[in-house]
Amino acid sequence: MTEWLDDAQQAAWRKLIEVVEVLPGALDSQLRRDAELSHFDYFTLAMLSEAPGRTLRMTALAELTNSSLPRLSHVASRLEQRGYLERAQCPDDRRATVATLTEAGWQKVVATAPGHVGTVRDLVFADLDASDVADLDRIMARVLGRLNR
Amino acid sequence: MTEWLDDAQQAAWRKLIEVVEVLPGALDSQLRRDAELSHFDYFTLAMLSEAPGRTLRMTALAELTNSSLPRLSHVASRLEQRGYLERAQCPDDRRATVATLTEAGWQKVVATAPGHVGTVRDLVFADLDASDVADLDRIMARVLGRLNR
Repeated sequence: MTEWLDDAQQAAWRKLIEVVEVLPGALDSQLRRDAELSHFDYFTLAMLSEAPGRTLRMTALAELTNSSLPRLSHVASRLEQRGYLERAQCPDDRRATVATLTEAGWQKVVATAPGHVGTVRDLVFADLDASDVADLDRIMARVLGRLNR
Repeated sequence: MTEWLDDAQQAAWRKLIEVVEVLPGALDSQLRRDAELSHFDYFTLAMLSEAPGRTLRMTALAELTNSSLPRLSHVASRLEQRGYLERAQCPDDRRATVATLTEAGWQKVVATAPGHVGTVRDLVFADLDASDVADLDRIMARVLGRLNR
């Protein structure tokens, strides 16, 4: 017999799904308008900007950006054409490819980060106090524990 | 001066973004495998199944599914071709279109719901107790209050 969601679960689920559907478009919209980047483009550049030597293996970058390798390769190719990153054979493993943020890519992240963070604060954190943030962290960690099994 | 996220906000944000990126694919994957529906297809049919007379104006259905009208029209057209819904001129307002779930669409929702709910329970609610669910509901409501201004 099917175990349905109870009323409280159903109410929380509807809200979570709405956030999941609406948030990416809202993030994309500010970044496209102000930096001609999708959120995924920005996140890819931001992950490289925080890596040692601003370089990561493509497989590691795919994991950090919650992406498949084909999707990441497609995006990396466009970002490479725009001069924000470069791909090369990994010096330690000739079968692997690494991506490196260029100086122009670094400047792009530096120029784009304040507007993006302002949007995240405005859309997500403006009405959350420290205890809400701790609850959000705990609950998302539990959901990820299931999603990433 | 840019006000950055503090460490707790940053940690919660990374987790929320990962859920936002990964959850839709996980929901789609079960529904496509078991019912040849995307999550958006299913959600559209489910919203109609709960409406009076299993009928809604397309504008109301777009709002319920957090969708633009063009995106919904595209999906509705495919669902209509598969025999799950029908569109007609609204009897009260000739400029408006209504969508009605067909009997085949109703049977599709009835057949698909248990597997989908099982997936939602398994991926999202399995490790959340009643207090987590209440926290999730409260926090998502606050975020939606910002996103939907």
